[in-house]
Amino acid sequence: MRPLKIAIIGFGKIAADQHVPAIAGNARFDLVATVSRSSSGAHLGQSFTSHTDLLEAVTDLDAVAITTPPGVRYEIARPCIERGLHVLLEKPPSVTLSDIHDLACLADAEERTLFATWHARHNPAVEAAAKALAGKRIADMQVVWHEDVRKWHPGQQWIWEPGGFGVFDPGINALSIVTKIFPGPLFVKAAALSYPDDAQTPVAAEIGFASPVADGAMHCSLDWRRPDGEEWTITIRTADGLTVRLEDGGGRLLIDGVEQAAEGIGEYPDVYRAFVQLIDERRSLVDVTPLRLVADCLLIGTRQNVGPTPR
Amino acid sequence: MRPLKIAIIGFGKIAADQHVPAIAGNARFDLVATVSRSSSGAHLGQSFTSHTDLLEAVTDLDAVAITTPPGVRYEIARPCIERGLHVLLEKPPSVTLSDIHDLACLADAEERTLFATWHARHNPAVEAAAKALAGKRIADMQVVWHEDVRKWHPGQQWIWEPGGFGVFDPGINALSIVTKIFPGPLFVKAAALSYPDDAQTPVAAEIGFASPVADGAMHCSLDWRRPDGEEWTITIRTADGLTVRLEDGGGRLLIDGVEQAAEGIGEYPDVYRAFVQLIDERRSLVDVTPLRLVADCLLIGTRQNVGPTPR
Repeated sequence: MRPLKIAIIGFGKIAADQHVPAIAGNARFDLVATVSRSSSGAHLGQSFTSHTDLLEAVTDLDAVAITTPPGVRYEIARPCIERGLHVLLEKPPSVTLSDIHDLACLADAEERTLFATWHARHNPAVEAAAKALAGKRIADMQVVWHEDVRKWHPGQQWIWEPGGFGVFDPGINALSIVTKIFPGPLFVKAAALSYPDDAQTPVAAEIGFASPVADGAMHCSLDWRRPDGEEWTITIRTADGLTVRLEDGGGRLLIDGVEQAAEGIGEYPDVYRAFVQLIDERRSLVDVTPLRLVADCLLIGTRQNVGPTPR
Repeated sequence: MRPLKIAIIGFGKIAADQHVPAIAGNARFDLVATVSRSSSGAHLGQSFTSHTDLLEAVTDLDAVAITTPPGVRYEIARPCIERGLHVLLEKPPSVTLSDIHDLACLADAEERTLFATWHARHNPAVEAAAKALAGKRIADMQVVWHEDVRKWHPGQQWIWEPGGFGVFDPGINALSIVTKIFPGPLFVKAAALSYPDDAQTPVAAEIGFASPVADGAMHCSLDWRRPDGEEWTITIRTADGLTVRLEDGGGRLLIDGVEQAAEGIGEYPDVYRAFVQLIDERRSLVDVTPLRLVADCLLIGTRQNVGPTPR
């Protein structure tokens, strides 16, 4: 079987750090081109400054990984699918639910694979947590995703703009893990959203969830104003007394305080393993649940202004 | 065939004005009970003050129409579907997308009909507009939904609260018509949302749309601050030069300025005709597109504060 010829569109930090080595480590893919306005991936095969040029020049391409900021992904993904390419999207797949719904319909119609990835779900500890919780009734849940926006997004203005997601940009990783491991549906029942005076997206969100399989309180705290005590944890207690806790953003699993061994090939290598499997099975995988929960927070949330953006 | 025994849950103005006569005029239904905290539908069969009491007492019920405010519909609809009833939901079907997604999955699993209604789509002029536009390429579109909130929602506080939808409460009718008649998908590209200082939901929204089947500008103006010059119109020009215009909220159709005859049984009678058809075909109809467009406006909209709520 000849390898699938793949191109990376949008060559930023995540492409260089994660997508390039994951593709290089997968014998089923051959990275033949990159697209970047700054030509930053130029050493990796053919180099283009627009996806239009790529689609014109590389006629035997099989797939693309779109790793641009979310706001432009739809306009890029649509012609790629129409051209008959399999498409992998970084998270979040789009900035609106209508955009990703349309891409999913188009991929079905064109019989191509569309893979809306949530990389945090591909951590082996997350898979192990899902197994530990499967079929259980839930007592309560606490999600804490606290970090310092100045450290992780220095000088980045797009996160504060419409469609920039704000604290939901990292927070959607937490939601993607929770919706993977939680043994039932989750509903947003209340959300308190804190907006900087000079921003269109929130810097913090306190979310209350409900579920038909849960009895007690379920809370999620997303906060970008925490230079001290950064924390990325999900703690779920089951009705039969188990405490399942993910730490380090899904990197470590503790059950009743005891760390569990969880080995795997790593997040992004597993993303590409799953992409190959979907292509082989002629299927798409487009789970919009994490993005829908963000939309639900905005549909029923209360808003308060909280001073200037952290700088 | 014996008539389907139906109950109305939530007996407010819309139930009395629209649902009761529509059910009375449909031989396939027999209205056997109502649920209302104030017992306001008590003269129409058995009367209950909670849906739990209804489900306990009326064991041979076939269907329910849920016409409460949207915020409580999910908690009522779920046990009704679980009890094996067919469920009709007033618009909007829920306050979050996760809620209605879950109800749709549950109805599929229980093999019951769930019908998320958009009554404005059942106007005969709307159906005629859809036929006039089918398969056409679009030049541009203008939606104007301007009204006086003080006239239509006097003293109602819930519209301003989280999940109250604000100007999207009537505006979602416009979106439900547009998504029915527009001959292709519609995407929110920009939204400017105006919030009263003391409200959690907007009093006005200016929305820009895009579509792969349209060439020019597509704009929607929702505004609740218009005591003079109320207007509910949708004007769509096709690339081949036709002007299709709906006036009076979908009540009148004009093509190139000439009013078209459009006759039918009326909005709510047609809603119940469709409900029977769905039940007979053992299908559900849950189109979340209008609600998803509202969520998309909130996902990518800009917000500005505009003074106190109109009183």
